[in-house]
Amino acid sequence: MLTYSRNILIEFGDCDPAGIVYFPRYFVWFDNNTVGLFESAGISLRERLTTQDLVGIPMVDAHAKFFIPSTFGDEITIETTIREFRRSSFDVYHRLYNRGELAAEGFETRVWAGKHPELPGRLKSQPIPVDLIARFR
Amino acid sequence: MLTYSRNILIEFGDCDPAGIVYFPRYFVWFDNNTVGLFESAGISLRERLTTQDLVGIPMVDAHAKFFIPSTFGDEITIETTIREFRRSSFDVYHRLYNRGELAAEGFETRVWAGKHPELPGRLKSQPIPVDLIARFR
Amino acid sequence: MLTYSRNILIEFGDCDPAGIVYFPRYFVWFDNNTVGLFESAGISLRERLTTQDLVGIPMVDAHAKFFIPSTFGDEITIETTIREFRRSSFDVYHRLYNRGELAAEGFETRVWAGKHPELPGRLKSQPIPVDLIARFR
Amino acid sequence: MLTYSRNILIEFGDCDPAGIVYFPRYFVWFDNNTVGLFESAGISLRERLTTQDLVGIPMVDAHAKFFIPSTFGDEITIETTIREFRRSSFDVYHRLYNRGELAAEGFETRVWAGKHPELPGRLKSQPIPVDLIARFR
Repeated sequence: MLTYSRNILIEFGDCDPAGIVYFPRYFVWFDNNTVGLFESAGISLRERLTTQDLVGIPMVDAHAKFFIPSTFGDEITIETTIREFRRSSFDVYHRLYNRGELAAEGFETRVWAGKHPELPGRLKSQPIPVDLIARFR
Repeated sequence: MLTYSRNILIEFGDCDPAGIVYFPRYFVWFDNNTVGLFESAGISLRERLTTQDLVGIPMVDAHAKFFIPSTFGDEITIETTIREFRRSSFDVYHRLYNRGELAAEGFETRVWAGKHPELPGRLKSQPIPVDLIARFR
Repeated sequence: MLTYSRNILIEFGDCDPAGIVYFPRYFVWFDNNTVGLFESAGISLRERLTTQDLVGIPMVDAHAKFFIPSTFGDEITIETTIREFRRSSFDVYHRLYNRGELAAEGFETRVWAGKHPELPGRLKSQPIPVDLIARFR
Repeated sequence: MLTYSRNILIEFGDCDPAGIVYFPRYFVWFDNNTVGLFESAGISLRERLTTQDLVGIPMVDAHAKFFIPSTFGDEITIETTIREFRRSSFDVYHRLYNRGELAAEGFETRVWAGKHPELPGRLKSQPIPVDLIARFR
């Protein structure tokens, strides 16, 4: 499976009064890496969101395990891959390294979603295009 | 077990281009409610953080399930309780309601942490004071 | 002029490693209060954004002065009013109080914006409806 | 004067329901660039914050002008320089470019701050070390 990797410099403002990363920030970085993985597979979510009926890839299950805290000035690396595609949902797996140590893991289940045809403001899952899935192999 | 509840008005800036809450915000609200639960038990984390050797209650496992998206203008309610106290860690459970429907659930495992005596910049778990645990019953 | 006021409990995650509010958070609270001011005037930005051609009230000038730092556990009050309406832009003024002291001030200039008719992805200012302005008096 | 420049990829989660950058994010990026400017001058704020009596470089005045909105997928460049050093405060200037166009400007006044000797939880400005100022020339 295709893997996408990004280095992130942790900033002062990413950290809380305990001096370590405020944990919701990890979910932001994981989210950004999921988009980056799609881009690296040649799939522009931006383009699909503006020209097609895709509304987003909303999260239905987000899970993270934190082993080692990181702080500002640290440069971390996040490696992201997709573990499984199903009909209209998929599982993403993130590994976050700080100085070579596995510092956190992230697990996401997301759906491929368009506008709900009947309920305004709600989303509805749609089949993930088969040619799209092929690009991650 | 003591339960803490807070109403939150979802703001424009809490939402993403899909028009729904940007999911890391849920973890922020869950985090705030955990602090609120401690306060409602008569335990000021602020006071303990500034006067004692507590550095924080860092997350070791954060998990959320999202059932229904919410959007700006919605008023949600988050109910928070502690499911289990162990020697130096504890499990928090959040239920998020939007118009009476269960819209999301959150599960946290946190540790009671002080400064690590040997490794600067790292935290070390400490036993949770027994009298503190009693206040949640 | 109509004034809108909201109390905000400052959270642990709103603060940085110096233990004080991470300053971009002030702009978030100011932004939320601007929306609250419109709501208190009977104008739902949410409704206008979803049913009309309003795309938003984007900022063209944001300015804040910080006099006293605030920290988690503090309850602050933000008072918001509109200082001037022009044809398609308006000036918002925020005063932030912490324990009765003026701790910060905010100044915003925003435009009433719809989709640009020619440039996709860009916004275009539009005249502010006159009946809307009347509601702030 | 020394100038520091950084490229930033705008993410989905940086944007609001109008599809453009949620404006407080600009202040976060400006803040990060100020830290980056200090690092490029050989001054580690992290080191000073942990080993010396510096508590931070808190903002006393933050101002931004927004000319062109940016959206996710855009790669912006922020150029940062210091306009003036005074005894215990200094002015930072940011220019943000999107596809070669000046899209925003930022203006900061910050103080060099240590712990207040008498008022706990408050900060007190301190003289900026002269050798530090020399590194920006």
